[in-house]
Amino acid sequence: MSEFRIGVLGRGTVGGAFATLLEEHRARAERITGLTPVISGVISRSSGPTFAELLADSDLIVELIGGIEPARSWVLEALKAGKHVVTANKQLLSQHGEELYEAARDAGVQLRFEGAVAGVVPAVRVLSESLAGARITRVHGIVNGTTNFILTEMARQGSSYTQALAEAQRLGYAEADPSEDVNGKDAAAKMAILARLAFDTPVHLDQVPYDGIEHITADDIAYAREFGLALKLIGTAERVEEGISVRVHPAFLYPGHPLAPVDGPFNAVTLEGPDFTEVTLSGPGAGGPQTATAVLGDVVSAMIPPASAPLAVRPRPLLTDVESAFYLHLAVADVPGVLATVAKTLADHGISVRLVLQRGQGGDAALTLITHVVLESKFEAAVEALAGLEVLRRPPRVIRVLEEEFR
Amino acid sequence: MSEFRIGVLGRGTVGGAFATLLEEHRARAERITGLTPVISGVISRSSGPTFAELLADSDLIVELIGGIEPARSWVLEALKAGKHVVTANKQLLSQHGEELYEAARDAGVQLRFEGAVAGVVPAVRVLSESLAGARITRVHGIVNGTTNFILTEMARQGSSYTQALAEAQRLGYAEADPSEDVNGKDAAAKMAILARLAFDTPVHLDQVPYDGIEHITADDIAYAREFGLALKLIGTAERVEEGISVRVHPAFLYPGHPLAPVDGPFNAVTLEGPDFTEVTLSGPGAGGPQTATAVLGDVVSAMIPPASAPLAVRPRPLLTDVESAFYLHLAVADVPGVLATVAKTLADHGISVRLVLQRGQGGDAALTLITHVVLESKFEAAVEALAGLEVLRRPPRVIRVLEEEFR
Repeated sequence: MSEFRIGVLGRGTVGGAFATLLEEHRARAERITGLTPVISGVISRSSGPTFAELLADSDLIVELIGGIEPARSWVLEALKAGKHVVTANKQLLSQHGEELYEAARDAGVQLRFEGAVAGVVPAVRVLSESLAGARITRVHGIVNGTTNFILTEMARQGSSYTQALAEAQRLGYAEADPSEDVNGKDAAAKMAILARLAFDTPVHLDQVPYDGIEHITADDIAYAREFGLALKLIGTAERVEEGISVRVHPAFLYPGHPLAPVDGPFNAVTLEGPDFTEVTLSGPGAGGPQTATAVLGDVVSAMIPPASAPLAVRPRPLLTDVESAFYLHLAVADVPGVLATVAKTLADHGISVRLVLQRGQGGDAALTLITHVVLESKFEAAVEALAGLEVLRRPPRVIRVLEEEFR
Repeated sequence: MSEFRIGVLGRGTVGGAFATLLEEHRARAERITGLTPVISGVISRSSGPTFAELLADSDLIVELIGGIEPARSWVLEALKAGKHVVTANKQLLSQHGEELYEAARDAGVQLRFEGAVAGVVPAVRVLSESLAGARITRVHGIVNGTTNFILTEMARQGSSYTQALAEAQRLGYAEADPSEDVNGKDAAAKMAILARLAFDTPVHLDQVPYDGIEHITADDIAYAREFGLALKLIGTAERVEEGISVRVHPAFLYPGHPLAPVDGPFNAVTLEGPDFTEVTLSGPGAGGPQTATAVLGDVVSAMIPPASAPLAVRPRPLLTDVESAFYLHLAVADVPGVLATVAKTLADHGISVRLVLQRGQGGDAALTLITHVVLESKFEAAVEALAGLEVLRRPPRVIRVLEEEFR
């Protein structure tokens, strides 16, 4: 199988995660593309080949050094040399995007940048490919995980901005110098990139007014909660009658808004249009492995046109007896010892109970239980045993519970 | 510009919406692909060319007739003739997918089917392209809008299954014969398709155990709410130690789960993997225009490899003074007539108030208001006027409110 050579610029967190991922998923990439992806070299601040050497040895350049120079010159040079480029550099694209996009179109090569906006949340691909045939009227985004974590913390704990920021720093969700996150500039760069894709209008970072969260008080969050509102740092890119508007500012959301439940260090983007109404994409904000996953998805797409049809199968056994937690409703006789009898029956079948609710009296008495996970076959046997108990007035009612508690 | 000829099978709701969308967005498709997409013919039950005639006249076939035959034979014939196919047919793919996928791979043509799973929610593309380089461990989906509407209605109104179904039918969210929606079979077909993509294992509809919502009582929903749980019809496809498991059943979700807030006739899919943790995609379930949007996205992708770089610009003016609703916090003197003074100032600036909260006494008194939308410049002028009022003890605090109440 021929090699597909990937030159990497940058040796930071994302670069390291990318190399690891590529190693792990090389076989799958080969099955999709018919080529073997290999890293032809890595340039970091202090080591590696010269850029000219790396370029000569590469079919595609992954740019992860960030900042404007030398990223801009190197990406331009790569595109002009007919090499594909995948980048996660929001500063570069929000300030010099047009120059790079034009160079890519002129050379007929791919320039992909999913990792530059919301990490693994696939806003760029969905906007430019899934919705290629749709009119977009508005993009709303929570595109900065640091600020979303801080606002969630303030809402949940009633803590001040300063306290919540310290907590974010302690947990690694905020950097030592968080200025560009908390003042909205990071989100503004990302919204400039999304607005460009949604409306075919060049948008420079300098043209995006932004306002951060430093001045938000726990007081305002508490007052607004009485109106049912949740506070988020919202990036907006929308068509307005005479043109478009792109901006970033804190905003309250009504409960039904698709971005209202997005809490903690998460990112999410809602795309709106008259044909499809709305689509919301959400996931963890940019971390090393998340951004690297986005970069690898872009690399695989650049290696070939996307898979034209599902891959040939590599079958795994399809199982039916799997684990689940359960909700169990038992209409019981109102006599002493019922709970003990039920609990013993469950314990005898190896089922451990997580929550119990006892309600009603006499002909109304009911036990409602939530179990921990157990093999379905085991649980079914326990329910059969319970159904045979004299204290049961009606057949047990059973519904599965997804065990995971997210976020 | 050369033509790209699209033969359409089916003249139903989605087919009609597709023709309309294509007309509206032809110019954009031309800019992306360099080709002019035209509909070369439409076959319906009672009219149109023969399939052989249509095939000879088409570069791509859009299959929207549903069911197994003649859809299966025609799609196969098209693929073997070297034509791309875009389909929204979940029955066909969940029962004869492998035969079709193999034919597409053998012919080196594209077979795309975003519209077959969750309408415009881009689960297929994100799974097969964005996450092409990632290990998927689980897919959870709310992939049937009818049942999600019914369960939401039961939870919100306390109504019975029968009442909620009648309401769904009245609003057009359920068909006259809703059997395959409410018994889980429709969701099972969609999960079979997603499982195939996630795990490269052929999954036939007959291999997916499913359980519907007909037996759910409002009682169970109410009890579980005391534990903080929300009920959804959940499709699961997951890796388990020795293989994979694919199934559909009602399940309770804990509050933090990304699918817990998905209410009403919406669809959503959560993809999980160790590298990227999780990504959730959500939007309205399949309606004509939603599915047609997904179909058109697939058609544009099949016309060429996806845009390698953003399109050349077609600039629109970038505006800065736009409309917003506002949260306004005023620390006021506790004297009679304060609310009247504030209200008059706002009214003089053309600002209409949606909600007011009056709190505290003496040095603690505060007015909190939510306005309706207004031009930002107008609102700023009003705030300046308010700041000059004698009754104000501190500068006003202002935060934007997104006006929309979704769903």
